[in-house]
Amino acid sequence: MKPRVMILLGSSSDFSIAKKAIDILETLCIPYDIKVASAHRTHEKVKKIVTESTKNGIEVFMGIAGLSAHLPGIMAANTHKPVVGVPVDVKVGGLDALYASVQMPFGAPVATVGIDRGDNGALLAAQIIGIHDEEVRKRVSSMRSSFFEKVNKDESKLLEKVN
Amino acid sequence: MKPRVMILLGSSSDFSIAKKAIDILETLCIPYDIKVASAHRTHEKVKKIVTESTKNGIEVFMGIAGLSAHLPGIMAANTHKPVVGVPVDVKVGGLDALYASVQMPFGAPVATVGIDRGDNGALLAAQIIGIHDEEVRKRVSSMRSSFFEKVNKDESKLLEKVN
Amino acid sequence: MKPRVMILLGSSSDFSIAKKAIDILETLCIPYDIKVASAHRTHEKVKKIVTESTKNGIEVFMGIAGLSAHLPGIMAANTHKPVVGVPVDVKVGGLDALYASVQMPFGAPVATVGIDRGDNGALLAAQIIGIHDEEVRKRVSSMRSSFFEKVNKDESKLLEKVN
Amino acid sequence: MKPRVMILLGSSSDFSIAKKAIDILETLCIPYDIKVASAHRTHEKVKKIVTESTKNGIEVFMGIAGLSAHLPGIMAANTHKPVVGVPVDVKVGGLDALYASVQMPFGAPVATVGIDRGDNGALLAAQIIGIHDEEVRKRVSSMRSSFFEKVNKDESKLLEKVN
Amino acid sequence: MKPRVMILLGSSSDFSIAKKAIDILETLCIPYDIKVASAHRTHEKVKKIVTESTKNGIEVFMGIAGLSAHLPGIMAANTHKPVVGVPVDVKVGGLDALYASVQMPFGAPVATVGIDRGDNGALLAAQIIGIHDEEVRKRVSSMRSSFFEKVNKDESKLLEKVN
Amino acid sequence: MKPRVMILLGSSSDFSIAKKAIDILETLCIPYDIKVASAHRTHEKVKKIVTESTKNGIEVFMGIAGLSAHLPGIMAANTHKPVVGVPVDVKVGGLDALYASVQMPFGAPVATVGIDRGDNGALLAAQIIGIHDEEVRKRVSSMRSSFFEKVNKDESKLLEKVN
Amino acid sequence: MKPRVMILLGSSSDFSIAKKAIDILETLCIPYDIKVASAHRTHEKVKKIVTESTKNGIEVFMGIAGLSAHLPGIMAANTHKPVVGVPVDVKVGGLDALYASVQMPFGAPVATVGIDRGDNGALLAAQIIGIHDEEVRKRVSSMRSSFFEKVNKDESKLLEKVN
Amino acid sequence: MKPRVMILLGSSSDFSIAKKAIDILETLCIPYDIKVASAHRTHEKVKKIVTESTKNGIEVFMGIAGLSAHLPGIMAANTHKPVVGVPVDVKVGGLDALYASVQMPFGAPVATVGIDRGDNGALLAAQIIGIHDEEVRKRVSSMRSSFFEKVNKDESKLLEKVN
Repeated sequence: MKPRVMILLGSSSDFSIAKKAIDILETLCIPYDIKVASAHRTHEKVKKIVTESTKNGIEVFMGIAGLSAHLPGIMAANTHKPVVGVPVDVKVGGLDALYASVQMPFGAPVATVGIDRGDNGALLAAQIIGIHDEEVRKRVSSMRSSFFEKVNKDESKLLEKVN
Repeated sequence: MKPRVMILLGSSSDFSIAKKAIDILETLCIPYDIKVASAHRTHEKVKKIVTESTKNGIEVFMGIAGLSAHLPGIMAANTHKPVVGVPVDVKVGGLDALYASVQMPFGAPVATVGIDRGDNGALLAAQIIGIHDEEVRKRVSSMRSSFFEKVNKDESKLLEKVN
Repeated sequence: MKPRVMILLGSSSDFSIAKKAIDILETLCIPYDIKVASAHRTHEKVKKIVTESTKNGIEVFMGIAGLSAHLPGIMAANTHKPVVGVPVDVKVGGLDALYASVQMPFGAPVATVGIDRGDNGALLAAQIIGIHDEEVRKRVSSMRSSFFEKVNKDESKLLEKVN
Repeated sequence: MKPRVMILLGSSSDFSIAKKAIDILETLCIPYDIKVASAHRTHEKVKKIVTESTKNGIEVFMGIAGLSAHLPGIMAANTHKPVVGVPVDVKVGGLDALYASVQMPFGAPVATVGIDRGDNGALLAAQIIGIHDEEVRKRVSSMRSSFFEKVNKDESKLLEKVN
Repeated sequence: MKPRVMILLGSSSDFSIAKKAIDILETLCIPYDIKVASAHRTHEKVKKIVTESTKNGIEVFMGIAGLSAHLPGIMAANTHKPVVGVPVDVKVGGLDALYASVQMPFGAPVATVGIDRGDNGALLAAQIIGIHDEEVRKRVSSMRSSFFEKVNKDESKLLEKVN
Repeated sequence: MKPRVMILLGSSSDFSIAKKAIDILETLCIPYDIKVASAHRTHEKVKKIVTESTKNGIEVFMGIAGLSAHLPGIMAANTHKPVVGVPVDVKVGGLDALYASVQMPFGAPVATVGIDRGDNGALLAAQIIGIHDEEVRKRVSSMRSSFFEKVNKDESKLLEKVN
Repeated sequence: MKPRVMILLGSSSDFSIAKKAIDILETLCIPYDIKVASAHRTHEKVKKIVTESTKNGIEVFMGIAGLSAHLPGIMAANTHKPVVGVPVDVKVGGLDALYASVQMPFGAPVATVGIDRGDNGALLAAQIIGIHDEEVRKRVSSMRSSFFEKVNKDESKLLEKVN
Repeated sequence: MKPRVMILLGSSSDFSIAKKAIDILETLCIPYDIKVASAHRTHEKVKKIVTESTKNGIEVFMGIAGLSAHLPGIMAANTHKPVVGVPVDVKVGGLDALYASVQMPFGAPVATVGIDRGDNGALLAAQIIGIHDEEVRKRVSSMRSSFFEKVNKDESKLLEKVN
């Protein structure tokens, strides 16, 4: 199936964070592609992926990177599609990657989510896609409902433990 | 014209940041609505605005707030549409508002942009809308091009100043 | 017995911090209730619990949450009773949750205690209740006295170890 | 009238923050007393004020201090009544005072509010007093309602400015 | 032998940091006393120890504490003798304790050393005592010399490992 | 004269920091070129400048940028010549730009100097050039000597003021 | 009169902080000397001053510096006398200078006081000298007493303003 | 072979970071020397090594240190050759060492790389040497190419894992 979300990983060592995103996208039946490409080491590759994916109809990009996480910003510089940034905690609690993702100058915004939050990055991508796709929107709603039930069950179990 | 972006301001004192967003949206001819409503002081109002706006077809929400900026998070809790968060620097350089916007738990992501960056918040909203609206996409491209020219002119002026 | 303190937990994963609060409240014989409800995932539930508990005579609320910890703030937005906030260290040393709890705008203060300090949150609740309840006040005094003795014993043991 | 809230100021230079608290307490018709006494320079005085005030029926204490703000902690060490801490921004954005107020060890919690938030400190004190005083509770409700109206008016003015 | 340095420990859980100080003082043959006393839980005891020790000729005090580390500041408030502060890392990397020790207002300075640096705290105390005690000064010199040799040996071992 | 240092400015608003660098380079008679080009807005231009300058014999690059300062990192990704990064304080005290410059992954190091330190960036470039250029090295030495004299004169003036 | 405290200033631009120290030392009638010498620019001079001053009987050193404030550490590396460090706020709120002063490795402790606290640095020096000088100790006591009176007067004035 | 890079280690406990630098230098066939010498404990030794190495033709220095990392700054104060600083994470996430390396005043810049990034420090040194040494430049290019291949292989492996 034609991918709608393109995930770029700055380094294969950040895969555990990408895995969280993948799990959500698969649950929501949103086709995606995932590649490893560094903003600094394989810069041309990043650009090529982003430019071609934009032409090929990718709707949302996601850049997952740690340290001075330039990946999502570089992606944003090469496409008019929205780019979701997921900062990864490698050093200083992930604050370096958070600032590098979020503090973008005017012209290339990165839709930054929380440190190590691949799951929320994927959900945000789904919500963006859902604006014009009722099926996706329904599955997002359903996912939220099941969370609600999960929280209820958590509480029941907890109360049993306490009482 | 029917608004496509709904801007909520936590406090009227943050209007200068909202103004940056408004200017971009107007340049891009994207109709918007703007309201003042506090996540804490007028919580019901926030919820009502978000719920009704969602039904009325708002595509992207924007929450602008400082301090322990709960506004974008609360908005995200009440809609399946994407919510852009703009943290405002009121204390500690705006880090409190940045963390409060971005560090959301799973289920209610906020697409956070830089501190005081109303302009980037609006551009992100436009990029999201542009996925399915070619006219908006063209205007975003045109805006980028004019930036490119502006940077070139800046350089010319600068070089004259230096030489 | 009718609960006097209502503890809300943002996530069942924060239970170890709530456990510290529960232990103190039980030692002080203060009846409490505890529920799991997320400010974002089960927002209506939070509001319902807080509104009904306020009517039913809960004297002090306690919100325990990590990340962009909106829970205590949302609780404070829905009651005139004092709300104690306990920030939990999930990321960045708990500073995100600390700022989100403490940096509230005017109108909905959260009585924030230290990161992961469920014990102090409970003691603060007891001190608040103790203003008008001499029995509780006495038990708080007695708890303090026993700490004093504990510190003395710690010192004795330590001195033995050193000398 | 017999004071119900005792405000201690670490330094007369922090008076502007205390003024915010005083304004709220006066609006809520809650009698208070205010003194200047440093945790370090006039330590005995702090202790004497806190001990005597506790005996004389003060219900809530408030400690306002900047830098390594020990004042609220010292107050908490000398009374079983709740102590509200208001950190003041003198250096490093007020983070030193925030940490010093909030990161208390078990046994002497300080109910910390936001940096420079004398107004929220007073409101918290009022909410604590309001648990057992219906008149105060009503005035707190009324204050909240007037805020709601103010936010509405702010919005009206803002919309006029925008449109 | 009459103690010349009085070490106060905020909590027996900080003993490993105190141990570093004790080891240095014993190597330098400087008699010391050590007690556990909390600035908040056993405040009167702190004051009594400091006041009596001052009268009995203690030359330097050392306060070792974590979190909102008020202990060295309270000690400084009760003596004209110099007080060395050793911040302990319990939360947020020890920054809370560092700020609480070092950011003292005028009138009660705390001679703060690095986070968890009981060893440097003791060496500083020895250097202070050494101003008027040639024997101590010689032992401090001798300790420095042996460090120099240790560094040299470290290098030799390291070079062997590398080459 | 053929330029040896190429200065790239992320935005013309950072010119005051570039001016510090220019002044030092001119004092040291090191020819330079300066251009404005944003890592995000005019990315191709950055790459073209860096690639061509590398071929044309530029010895050291300097990237001056604030916020999520990707400019020096992007430059480093496109050349084997050393890249000096000068973080500019636009928000959060310049820490965002510092982290973005310095926390580079393996493969594209940025030789980062202090926040707003255009002068030190230029001196570092001169020291690098001086490895193989005795004339530059002599001028660097001479600059250091004149600083020494300046410090001496500062002291004289200061002592006069004090005494 | 023979100086007992040697103040070194990293840069003449930090003189306003040194002025606070000088004022206290003069009030306490403690003779001092003050020089400007940079840890990096005039390193030999720093070493010479410290070595000679140590021989000439200086009792306490004080190093006042901003940024990566190496001055007090270098001083501590060259003397067995205690070195007081005063971090100066030039960038990032003075945190760089604070960490550089306080986080010394074993062997060369710096007795660090608060950011910009030249006054407390001088008082600490006086307390150290006072261990073996009753006259200085008395003047320190007297200075404290006058503070107490000042705080009392501040309170009186404040109460008049409030009432 | 005559060393071209001189690595100084503040403490033998930082050897794991130096090892990363050594591995890169050996891969690039750049001869180096490594010594352990503390800016504070064996200051004269640091100075002697730097001064003699400068005379003996060392092209680039590297200082690796944690805490208040003065080592690279002291090295920079004693040579006109470029000094690369590698901050080591010992406390507070390495931010103390980062600030101490990078925030140097004018006159002694330190080319700072990321926290614990011995590898990038070595690569930067190689890039500096490569300005005038084509052989080194070629090996640096070759190293980059092999990284590119590695990233490609990482992606292949990852895609296999995902699909």
